[in-house]
Amino acid sequence: MQRDLKKQPLRGIVPPMATLLLDDTQLDTEGTSKLINHLLEGGVHGIFILGTTGECTNISYKLRRELISFTCKEVDGRVPVLVGVTDTSFHESLRLAGVARDAGADAVVAAPPYYYGLGEKEVLTYFQKLADELPLPLYLYNMPSHTKTMLSQDTVLTLSRHSNILGLKDSSGQAVYFNAMVYAFRDNPEFTLLVGPEEMLASSVLMGGHGGVSGGANMFPKLYVDLFHAAEKGDLSDVARLQALVMEISAEIYGLGSYGSSFLKGLKASMNVLGYGNGHLAFPLTPFEEEQFQEIKERLPRLGAYSYGQTK
Amino acid sequence: MQRDLKKQPLRGIVPPMATLLLDDTQLDTEGTSKLINHLLEGGVHGIFILGTTGECTNISYKLRRELISFTCKEVDGRVPVLVGVTDTSFHESLRLAGVARDAGADAVVAAPPYYYGLGEKEVLTYFQKLADELPLPLYLYNMPSHTKTMLSQDTVLTLSRHSNILGLKDSSGQAVYFNAMVYAFRDNPEFTLLVGPEEMLASSVLMGGHGGVSGGANMFPKLYVDLFHAAEKGDLSDVARLQALVMEISAEIYGLGSYGSSFLKGLKASMNVLGYGNGHLAFPLTPFEEEQFQEIKERLPRLGAYSYGQTK
Amino acid sequence: MQRDLKKQPLRGIVPPMATLLLDDTQLDTEGTSKLINHLLEGGVHGIFILGTTGECTNISYKLRRELISFTCKEVDGRVPVLVGVTDTSFHESLRLAGVARDAGADAVVAAPPYYYGLGEKEVLTYFQKLADELPLPLYLYNMPSHTKTMLSQDTVLTLSRHSNILGLKDSSGQAVYFNAMVYAFRDNPEFTLLVGPEEMLASSVLMGGHGGVSGGANMFPKLYVDLFHAAEKGDLSDVARLQALVMEISAEIYGLGSYGSSFLKGLKASMNVLGYGNGHLAFPLTPFEEEQFQEIKERLPRLGAYSYGQTK
Amino acid sequence: MQRDLKKQPLRGIVPPMATLLLDDTQLDTEGTSKLINHLLEGGVHGIFILGTTGECTNISYKLRRELISFTCKEVDGRVPVLVGVTDTSFHESLRLAGVARDAGADAVVAAPPYYYGLGEKEVLTYFQKLADELPLPLYLYNMPSHTKTMLSQDTVLTLSRHSNILGLKDSSGQAVYFNAMVYAFRDNPEFTLLVGPEEMLASSVLMGGHGGVSGGANMFPKLYVDLFHAAEKGDLSDVARLQALVMEISAEIYGLGSYGSSFLKGLKASMNVLGYGNGHLAFPLTPFEEEQFQEIKERLPRLGAYSYGQTK
Repeated sequence: MQRDLKKQPLRGIVPPMATLLLDDTQLDTEGTSKLINHLLEGGVHGIFILGTTGECTNISYKLRRELISFTCKEVDGRVPVLVGVTDTSFHESLRLAGVARDAGADAVVAAPPYYYGLGEKEVLTYFQKLADELPLPLYLYNMPSHTKTMLSQDTVLTLSRHSNILGLKDSSGQAVYFNAMVYAFRDNPEFTLLVGPEEMLASSVLMGGHGGVSGGANMFPKLYVDLFHAAEKGDLSDVARLQALVMEISAEIYGLGSYGSSFLKGLKASMNVLGYGNGHLAFPLTPFEEEQFQEIKERLPRLGAYSYGQTK
Repeated sequence: MQRDLKKQPLRGIVPPMATLLLDDTQLDTEGTSKLINHLLEGGVHGIFILGTTGECTNISYKLRRELISFTCKEVDGRVPVLVGVTDTSFHESLRLAGVARDAGADAVVAAPPYYYGLGEKEVLTYFQKLADELPLPLYLYNMPSHTKTMLSQDTVLTLSRHSNILGLKDSSGQAVYFNAMVYAFRDNPEFTLLVGPEEMLASSVLMGGHGGVSGGANMFPKLYVDLFHAAEKGDLSDVARLQALVMEISAEIYGLGSYGSSFLKGLKASMNVLGYGNGHLAFPLTPFEEEQFQEIKERLPRLGAYSYGQTK
Repeated sequence: MQRDLKKQPLRGIVPPMATLLLDDTQLDTEGTSKLINHLLEGGVHGIFILGTTGECTNISYKLRRELISFTCKEVDGRVPVLVGVTDTSFHESLRLAGVARDAGADAVVAAPPYYYGLGEKEVLTYFQKLADELPLPLYLYNMPSHTKTMLSQDTVLTLSRHSNILGLKDSSGQAVYFNAMVYAFRDNPEFTLLVGPEEMLASSVLMGGHGGVSGGANMFPKLYVDLFHAAEKGDLSDVARLQALVMEISAEIYGLGSYGSSFLKGLKASMNVLGYGNGHLAFPLTPFEEEQFQEIKERLPRLGAYSYGQTK
Repeated sequence: MQRDLKKQPLRGIVPPMATLLLDDTQLDTEGTSKLINHLLEGGVHGIFILGTTGECTNISYKLRRELISFTCKEVDGRVPVLVGVTDTSFHESLRLAGVARDAGADAVVAAPPYYYGLGEKEVLTYFQKLADELPLPLYLYNMPSHTKTMLSQDTVLTLSRHSNILGLKDSSGQAVYFNAMVYAFRDNPEFTLLVGPEEMLASSVLMGGHGGVSGGANMFPKLYVDLFHAAEKGDLSDVARLQALVMEISAEIYGLGSYGSSFLKGLKASMNVLGYGNGHLAFPLTPFEEEQFQEIKERLPRLGAYSYGQTK
């Protein structure tokens, strides 16, 4: 049974769960199960599958459907499950959303179609029709680096009036934009504002944001949950201490290598070291070469977050 | 039975066929059949379906499969059929290619996966593996405005050595790049170099290119075929005369409106007026509003290409 | 006599002073004098002239020299004066810096040369040579939207070791980058980190930044100074109250119109209404049309910041 | 005495003359003199100084003035001299244009101001006012990779009606745009359309363009002049032969290294080898390292253009 995310708006850490694969055609169900429990033990407030961190667009539809079903079953209602349905084809988005609804997911998340560049009016119409036809509530996903389309503030404001649109996940990395959203929705706290980049999690929440879709929470969920709570309570001393651990992860793990997908390579290598998955990335993305993998192996135990995770 | 495009390299006009739809869920088979015959009567040298002009990524996989089968059957081997299999998921590209092979298509065309930004090495590996596993020969598709990835000259040169990669369709619009390709392949004329933008067709062929994937050929195939032949033969007086007609179409039809997809809106509105399809665009793209449609209706008969087409 | 900004690192609000002009050839000395006193009464911690808000590159060198001399004389050592010397020509940057030194300015600020795209090594060499030859200390200026060059984290770290480079003003708007800088310099607090966009001032300072180069401080200096102090002290309730006023300015004043320079148009129109300058912008930028100017006139008195300013 | 470029529109090869410097502060007058004569002996139809190839924005105003005077004196009316006055400051553009007029130059060339992003209306107003106040006729310069501003077709059409604007130099590299211009001005051949990238020279002229601002003509002026004439006459066999030589230069000389300024580094290294200048680039651009310089030294004599030049 789905939760009513409208009455009880989403708050906190909703990790974009990494998709653990045995290879390009098989889900790592054992690993996924272990990961889900790891996230829940860390106290996350929801789980978002098939986001950018989840390699959404690169895996086959068959695997996407399997992942949706498996995750919903494993989570079993303990936290809301959000399912990414971003697609260039409207029809395929609806199909995935149907699978999500049937599996018991609580909401879907969608970025604009990303092959053709869309005009602002086309973006607006797209999300209105999507929200009309979806069997689940929708969170907007602003991801201009990947979709080439920035959701303008006006577009988000207009869309927020749709009864089936519950919030925005902003991965633009533009703090001016995010803070403008916080200001624009100052009287509508039921519209959820989540930030993508974890390096901005604390500052966004301090300014009035509602949480984060933090990739690093796949490794160290409790760290991000604690940072969220510290920021939410305004405990600046805790924020400073935990933010340093988050920035250290960013510098040491995601900053290795120079690919656009270095973040994903670093994350999956680290998760492998930590015991979650075999490090496989869906083709055409590829895991780190051995040398960089060894580098990750050496760096990881020296991270502040590593011991933080251990002794929690 | 597929042709051997390796022994008999593709040359000439290979229109990116517009996908005619009754609505978002139904192929306009009658219109498609009429369009295919129109193209063949115009003398085109091949037909490319599911390209950018064919709204490839926006229609459902079901419709894509239907279109592949229907087109191959209708064309019935009269010219080579090329099928766009560009996808973010490697697996889905292969699946579509399988459908294409089964239907009797002659080759596939693929741009790089376009959600994640890929590094140069990832692009190279992608196309090598794709060419290895495809059941049909492959043409590379350079479309950086939509995919965010420019196929570098080095990447194309390396890939051209793969026995299953037969050519490049370049839609970058960068003449320096295209001319560099012509120069780089001066001793390998069997590697086919086609240009996307029809406004560059004549100049590209004059410099040594092998033809064009001209969207306007959906309306006036004979015009583009004649322009190709004029350029191929070096008949500059014919080139000048026909190029003016092509530029007029570009100015009067594609230049209307300010959407990224104005080209598609103008093309489908014109095809509607000319009797090919009902003008429908797959959501989230939308046809011109009535006012602009009327404008197209008035402009079209005044085009030089219109009478050129009539009296052919 | 210049201050030692190395021993006493810059902290707080350093407004990018708007350049008040009677017309394209004459400085508004009366207005400038009034503005400087307004800023100082508001408690600003420094004044930065010839930044982007100061229309640096658009006014003649003669006017730039006059502005430097006039400002330094008027400020008379009450706060540090920083002078923008960004130029495409190394020689002209040095010349302006010489004028700044002679006039008694405390430091200069420079973004990379911005016509040719520079490689990372060229950027590094540029700033090293500049810092070597400058007669005043240097603050780096990261302004990729205007210069096309992002100062990488590595470049800034390397440059920070130069004894004549004292800090960074980051106008990229990318919070991940800024927070990464805060983390990278966690043990070197003498390297000053200022943020450009005022909408990010509070969040940046809360995360460990040292202040802001806030354009809006030209209108309401005390507001930004108070917001800085609130963030510095960690008074989140004051931060929330004042941040709302800052965001209101951003939404109501800078958001009017759709030019790239809307911020500047809105700022100068408002300053005109508030009694600072005649609203002139150096050609080719132009002030708001009458209609938008009237809009500003109506909106301004309704701003929370307006009364906040009045009753200070 | 200035020519009347309105009555006798510019046609042919107008090399963007490289600025030969002894060091950052001194013009290489001997080298410049030798270069000018080399260009004239090669048959060029004009000389364009202080363009992008001339490192316009990187050298001091003093050097720019010296170069203008020296060049005009050396050319002594044998061909038209065009002077780049692109600047962020309107006033400084006018000042340089005054120097150009006094020195006897025939026209100026200006790209839009390039620090602030300008709206289309601002660009239009800029060029109208510039053309009004300039003491010499103006050629528009479209250089979006450096200025961030694309001159739209509408803007150019409107500006072409100004009696003091004589043509367009397009360095966008976009053949669709250039061919659209050729079509738009099909009935106004007195408006000169020159193309920047030399790899597009032949194709542009074949389509109706009027010539090129070819950087390689600094090395091998006769080659580019002959290619222009071959294209103008429609001698496709000569075009093919000479185009191959031009593309070889592009591949072997400009393609070395990966800097944005590789073209300039390669050009100046080659000119040094050929006896024109010492290879110095104005800071912050820097010449090739020794290894790449040696590479150029080896490659140059093997170029087809090298012997073509020798035996001319």
